[in-house]
Amino acid sequence: MKRREWLAAAATLSSVAALGGLTGCAAPTLRGTGDLGVVIGRANGTLYLVDTSSRSLIGEVPGLGDLSHASVVFSRDGRFAYVFARDGGLTMVDLLTQRITRRVMQAGNSIGGAISDDGTLVAAQNYTPGGVKVFDARTLEIVADIPALYDPLGTPGKLSRVVGLVDLPGRRFAYSLFDADAIWVTDCSDPKKPLTQKFNGIGRQPYDALVTPDGRHYIAGLFGEDGLAMLDLWADNPGVRRILGGYGKGQEPLPVYKMPHLRGWAVAGRRAYLPAIGRHEVLVVDTDNWQEVGRIPVAGQPVFVMARPDGRQVWVNFAVPDYHRVQVIDTQRQQIVQTIEPGKAVLHMEFTPRGDAVWISSRDDDRVSVFDTAGFRRLAQLEVPAPSGIFFTSRAARMGF
Amino acid sequence: MKRREWLAAAATLSSVAALGGLTGCAAPTLRGTGDLGVVIGRANGTLYLVDTSSRSLIGEVPGLGDLSHASVVFSRDGRFAYVFARDGGLTMVDLLTQRITRRVMQAGNSIGGAISDDGTLVAAQNYTPGGVKVFDARTLEIVADIPALYDPLGTPGKLSRVVGLVDLPGRRFAYSLFDADAIWVTDCSDPKKPLTQKFNGIGRQPYDALVTPDGRHYIAGLFGEDGLAMLDLWADNPGVRRILGGYGKGQEPLPVYKMPHLRGWAVAGRRAYLPAIGRHEVLVVDTDNWQEVGRIPVAGQPVFVMARPDGRQVWVNFAVPDYHRVQVIDTQRQQIVQTIEPGKAVLHMEFTPRGDAVWISSRDDDRVSVFDTAGFRRLAQLEVPAPSGIFFTSRAARMGF
Repeated sequence: MKRREWLAAAATLSSVAALGGLTGCAAPTLRGTGDLGVVIGRANGTLYLVDTSSRSLIGEVPGLGDLSHASVVFSRDGRFAYVFARDGGLTMVDLLTQRITRRVMQAGNSIGGAISDDGTLVAAQNYTPGGVKVFDARTLEIVADIPALYDPLGTPGKLSRVVGLVDLPGRRFAYSLFDADAIWVTDCSDPKKPLTQKFNGIGRQPYDALVTPDGRHYIAGLFGEDGLAMLDLWADNPGVRRILGGYGKGQEPLPVYKMPHLRGWAVAGRRAYLPAIGRHEVLVVDTDNWQEVGRIPVAGQPVFVMARPDGRQVWVNFAVPDYHRVQVIDTQRQQIVQTIEPGKAVLHMEFTPRGDAVWISSRDDDRVSVFDTAGFRRLAQLEVPAPSGIFFTSRAARMGF
Repeated sequence: MKRREWLAAAATLSSVAALGGLTGCAAPTLRGTGDLGVVIGRANGTLYLVDTSSRSLIGEVPGLGDLSHASVVFSRDGRFAYVFARDGGLTMVDLLTQRITRRVMQAGNSIGGAISDDGTLVAAQNYTPGGVKVFDARTLEIVADIPALYDPLGTPGKLSRVVGLVDLPGRRFAYSLFDADAIWVTDCSDPKKPLTQKFNGIGRQPYDALVTPDGRHYIAGLFGEDGLAMLDLWADNPGVRRILGGYGKGQEPLPVYKMPHLRGWAVAGRRAYLPAIGRHEVLVVDTDNWQEVGRIPVAGQPVFVMARPDGRQVWVNFAVPDYHRVQVIDTQRQQIVQTIEPGKAVLHMEFTPRGDAVWISSRDDDRVSVFDTAGFRRLAQLEVPAPSGIFFTSRAARMGF
């Protein structure tokens, strides 16, 4: 654990160096929140606060628990970050005062969350106990508890682990039950009486899911069989159908070093770009009929395949051993136009709201890099101990984030 | 001018009543800026500040000049509104301190503006003197002056009126020259040396334009002839082509009570919805080939045809005499699903960032109404003297706004 000790020391030092008189009792500066963001300090349970205009670290908030696989959503005013930690901690952090506003231990093992379209409800998806808990976004008081109850093989009362939670219009949330082979959609428009619509038998072991940017298609990846389960939420009678039958397979299966996140899919125009599982390829799919229309060779096993907000570029990072590289696909030419090496163990990327720049975390180099997306120049470099997820407040204005 | 006097009195009263101790010397409250917005007080040169979470008026800033046809863009942190007034005034308003930060008279007659993708440059499009001026977004110092010079019939040195200015990725701006039948694209990545690419002979008298949400297609309406001019900015060799040949015409032309804004077009999924000029119809166009694929009958001559952010609904307002109504099109069923009457003289609509609500201004009832877009209930009503345009800070994160 030498590494961990070093990281703790580095965090303290960087705090003193980078922040100067800003921390402590100084009055918070009056400022807008549209250009703020956070970086997850995976190893030390710390949230690093960044300014995307000055491209700098502006503060840090420690004490958030186990932040491996942590994710973040934002209040609709952009002032508060809700951090979902792996250990079940849900922490509301004030980006202006740079302090924890509220914190609850809401589960034993948790895997992320979402915020309702109107910003009033925060929902967490849990492994233990399996289910979804919904909180008042202002007070973090629990307003709805939805256990993921199912009856495996005649044994009633079991709880399924929940994955793939996303927000939908109308204070609704969609999520998948890994152990119950189901997708549930819960309407919290009256949070005291949540109404859940259940889709059973959707395929074995949904392990993650996404919703398309228009909120129409909810797509779950299946661990237990090939293909994906898709729910068309705009249909008069929504039902689940199987798409991309060959998706998990390929002709010569390779060892899979890291299971790609489905949130890492890109939808650009009519096309979706997704990581081929275990293969050095990005798949191109027509979202009108959900058929594969092409494959683009890339430098390794893709993990995140993310579209620049305008859809003109798609950026790809990779699993071990190619995780020091990032490649850029031009969606018009359908080919790689750039390869960069931002640092070791690239874990995440986040675009600025209008896509002029991208922020990339390199965990093993303790570095976050900012690149311009037109000329691929490095615009800035921030020292952050073991950075993983990067999240900007502009997510508050977008669905499914 | 009795109406104007009454409005001035009403403004003063509403200021006292609505704001209480908030105005004057009280210290500004620490708050996020993601849920702020402004409403143009057309008759009294005042900007009304609103909070879209509490759905309330939180302040007002007078002294902005002639705000007929005024438009607004926001700084990338969401703190400052840049107000382009008809009289050439460009005013930077601080939404947190509720005061004017800077103000310049930059032209004699101006018609709106844009902010660069990285938030560093603000550009204004002018009738007199015809051209575009570019300002430092922080200081409002002029950094580039681009006169719209052209040579009509061998008379060199004339300046064209400029319309349809939009931001493009890479610190670029596109705009149309009404008198010169041209579209210009200026790259301000080095603002001291702006580089302009000129497309001439694009069709007679471009009067307004829009850019699609992905920044790919710049489309100008033509006053002097039928059809529209379209520039594909992603093409290897961008050129202008004519689309929608019958657009301005129709078989039995009706009197046109109000020329629709092209910014009022909706692009939802693969389809664009646009006001038929002079007819009681909304046209539906396939954006893959820019062919008309349908017409939806509506209650009057459409002015703004705006998509809810998810594209599932399109909201339409109308010219005189039907300007007390708003209709809602369901884009799946391709038909009207709701008609509401928010008040007299509906001038503008603005959706909350994730589309759960819409704000509608009714000029002649001195009212802004907030409707929920799922059940069409009126959620709130704000008294604002002669309101016109409504603009929320979430525009800072979007292209072409």
